[in-house]
Formats: sequence, structure tokens, C-alpha cells
Amino acid sequence: MKALFLHANQAESMSKPLILVTNDDGMFAPGIKALVAVAKEFGEVIVVAPNSPQSGKGHAITLEHPIRLHQVNVFDDIEAYECSGTPVDCVKLAKNILLKDRNIDLCLSGINHGSNASINIIYSGTMSAAMEAALEGTVSVGFSLMNFSFDADFSAAKTYAKKIVAQVLENGIQGCNLLNVNIPDLPLAEIKGTKVCRQAEGRWDEEFMEGTDPRGQKYYWLTGKFVLEDQRDDTDIKALNDGYISIVPSIHDLTSEPALVSNPHLNID
Amino acid sequence: MKALFLHANQAESMSKPLILVTNDDGMFAPGIKALVAVAKEFGEVIVVAPNSPQSGKGHAITLEHPIRLHQVNVFDDIEAYECSGTPVDCVKLAKNILLKDRNIDLCLSGINHGSNASINIIYSGTMSAAMEAALEGTVSVGFSLMNFSFDADFSAAKTYAKKIVAQVLENGIQGCNLLNVNIPDLPLAEIKGTKVCRQAEGRWDEEFMEGTDPRGQKYYWLTGKFVLEDQRDDTDIKALNDGYISIVPSIHDLTSEPALVSNPHLNID
Repeated sequence: MKALFLHANQAESMSKPLILVTNDDGMFAPGIKALVAVAKEFGEVIVVAPNSPQSGKGHAITLEHPIRLHQVNVFDDIEAYECSGTPVDCVKLAKNILLKDRNIDLCLSGINHGSNASINIIYSGTMSAAMEAALEGTVSVGFSLMNFSFDADFSAAKTYAKKIVAQVLENGIQGCNLLNVNIPDLPLAEIKGTKVCRQAEGRWDEEFMEGTDPRGQKYYWLTGKFVLEDQRDDTDIKALNDGYISIVPSIHDLTSEPALVSNPHLNID
Repeated sequence: MKALFLHANQAESMSKPLILVTNDDGMFAPGIKALVAVAKEFGEVIVVAPNSPQSGKGHAITLEHPIRLHQVNVFDDIEAYECSGTPVDCVKLAKNILLKDRNIDLCLSGINHGSNASINIIYSGTMSAAMEAALEGTVSVGFSLMNFSFDADFSAAKTYAKKIVAQVLENGIQGCNLLNVNIPDLPLAEIKGTKVCRQAEGRWDEEFMEGTDPRGQKYYWLTGKFVLEDQRDDTDIKALNDGYISIVPSIHDLTSEPALVSNPHLNID
């Protein structure tokens, strides 16, 4: 954790939290508009989001070329910046350029158009942005709605995002500082509540759409079907199938604890 | 795990393992040449690597446009393909297009030019490719040498990569199916051996190189300094500093076990 230096801005932020909002679908996705509306109710909001769709960009950062940051007027009274890089770049620029003298109290990422439950957290730009903030010591929550369409109804998602943000700001997150929240595509009345649960084991059964381009060259386009490989009762997929919003408290330490002691043959002279 | 269908090719692979080699530095990096030389001693090798440097691409996949795959003649008698996508795309194409009827016995990724110890596993294309193979059920090892230069000496790395691959093929990995191997930039005689250890906690203290382009527009270019925040004795950074090769057995389940039970306030009606 960074040392805490108090100054004028931070004194203010104690009464009104500073909230960074980002996503991977870009500044004009309805999902980020919904999340900004939620964040505004709790604190001072700054938005830094990609200037192009960045779905599936995982924890990519931009090393090979410089990136740009432009202030934009999208959310009326909310300060907002478009970044030419990845979702993780957005968080790094926000923390190190735009807000470098200030403490960010909370990072909210999303609301993603589409599920990031189970192993999708690994591929997700939305969750990687949230994880980047968490890595740097900021409490962080990524939200995803299980509906890919531009016209998705975010009203139930907003209602529960408000309840979750209120709990996180008031009582914090114990044991980690990152939540992966997935919201079933249901009307508010049909959502049973939220459930803290574990990441389900699953995988993508990939297929590639194969085709031939106008120059006669072969191409491959990724597609696939998610395959659940987990029958446990306490997974995010189970919670979602039962009509709950899943909340997976998540970490960035990938060490396998059992494997630390069960592989003496890998300690080689 | 996928069901095992035996056929002619697999009967052969039982005696001679099928090894997929990939990386994130591209087909012409000396590190992949070193790893192919190691892999050749153990089995039938196929190489699928990016056609451009993909450092820091994390677990990115290509969704917005199609990708290409071209056979290339780089490693004499070894079948090799260049892919226009990310390291993770390389693994997906290898498994689903090039080797779709075969069981891959082992995936080796690297040898990366530069460290992927501590939290760098999260950003690394090398380790994300290895993790993708592991996610899909293939035992997988990523190797990184702590030297960024093109002229790095891979001889000690090769010697130990052989010892590690021999152990993995003979005795497997217990408790997980992914290893993050980092190799100090030392002559063979100064390396003390390998050590199974945990991912150190650390973070990047970022700075951005700020500049103005020829059109007078501002740009930002990511740089930074790694900050170790972990004094435990059993971390990868400690092992590396002590002259050992670090081996972190790694997983893709990001669930925080303690946080599953310590956040009742997040179960909301």
C-alpha cells in the first residue's frame, strides 16, 4: 500500500470518496453510462475509458508505442477522458497522470456487456482494469451484465450496483480488495439477491470460423461455446443460474498452495 | 479434461510426447530457438508463435478481427507457424486447428527475454500462453530469463530447462498443471539449483514518459520500476536473489478463499 500523505484534496475525499470509473467497451457503451450514474450518487467521479472496444484484452498493457489521453464531454458534469490504450492502461494513466497526487477510494469497472463469470475473468478487459487498480492498492469492483446487446436493460443492474457500492464503501471488502460481480439478465423482481461465491471451473470449447478473404488468403475468427466443468454448489455459475447476482472475491496471487509442497521432484540441484 | 480418444497419432505420442512451443517475443527471438532446442530432445515439436512482439499482452485474445496462420521455415526440421494474433491466440489455433485431433502432452512457452516473476505473470504474454494451455487441460511450463537483450546467454537456461522438462514429463506436476519458471542471468556454475516457491507480492511504481509528437500532440509511454512488497522467505524474488531458478506452481482460479466467508455484508437481499 502507498503511504498516505494527507493534503487538501484528500481531506475533501474523506467526506466524498473519489471514484474512478472505467470499462472495456469504450466510452459510448450504455454500460458505462449506467455505472457513472451509480457512482455519482456516492462521490466525486472521474472516468477514463478506452477509445475503442477492448473486449477480451485481458491484462494487456501497451509497451510498443505511446498512448494518448483526451478529455471528452460525454457525461455532462463528470470529468471524462478517452485513452487510446487498453483497459489496464486506462487505470495506469488515471492513477499516475490524472490523479497522481490523490488517493482513489474506489475503482468501478463496467458495467460490461456480457458475462465475466467463471474463467472469463482471465480474458476480460473489464476485470483486468479492476484487478490493476486492486494490484495498486485500490478497492475495486467489476460489474458485468449477462446481455451483450447495446439495448440491454441496465435498470436492475444499477439497483444492485448501488447496494453493492454502498456496502463496499461502508464496510469494505475483508480478505481481498477485488470483486467480480456478474448480474443475470433478469427483471429486478426476479433477481433473488447477491451471493458471495467462488469462480466456477470451466473452459471454452473453441471453434474458429474459417474463411477466405477477398485476396484468396485463409483466415480464422475466434468463436466458441463455454463448457461448465464444475458441479459444486457455491460457484458463480450456479448462483447466476439460480437467479442470484454472483460476487466472487478475487486475488492476483496465482500460487497453487497445495502444489508448493507436493512437488519435491522440482527442487533440482 | 477432454475425453481421451485413442487413435494412430496418439498411440505414437505415447512413446514420443507431442510438445507445443510458443512465446510472446515472436518467432525470431533467440529465446524460442533455445526452447525449441530443448523440446526437440524430448519429443515431437510444433511451434506456433506470434508474428510480432507481444510482450505485455497478458491474456488478450483477438475478437474484433480475423487472424492468420502461416507455416514458416525457421527451425530446420521443426514444423512452425506464425500467427498474427496474441500468444493466447497461438495456443488456441494450435489446439483447435493445427492439432485438433491430437492430444498435446506438454506446452512450453518462452524462453522469455526478461523476468516474469512476482506479479509480472499477470501482464506476461509468455505466461498467459502457458496458462491458456493449462486452462485447456495441458501440462504447461513458461520459462523466462532475467535478461532483456537479444544477445542474452541462454546456455544455463537451456541446461535447467532440460532438467525441469525431464522431471515434468517423468513425474508430472502435482496439485496444478502450470509452472512459472524464472531464471537468473548467471553463468551455469553460479546457479544454485531450482526452488519451488510462491509468487512474491509486488507492484509497479509507474511513471510515464511524457512527450510531444511531431504534430504537437501529447503522448504517454509506459515505464516504471518494480517495487517488492514481500519479505517472506519462500517467494520467487527471494529465490532469484539467492541465485536459484524460481518455480511457481500456478493456477487460474482467482477466488479468495478467506474472503468467501469474511464478507457476509455482501450477501444482499
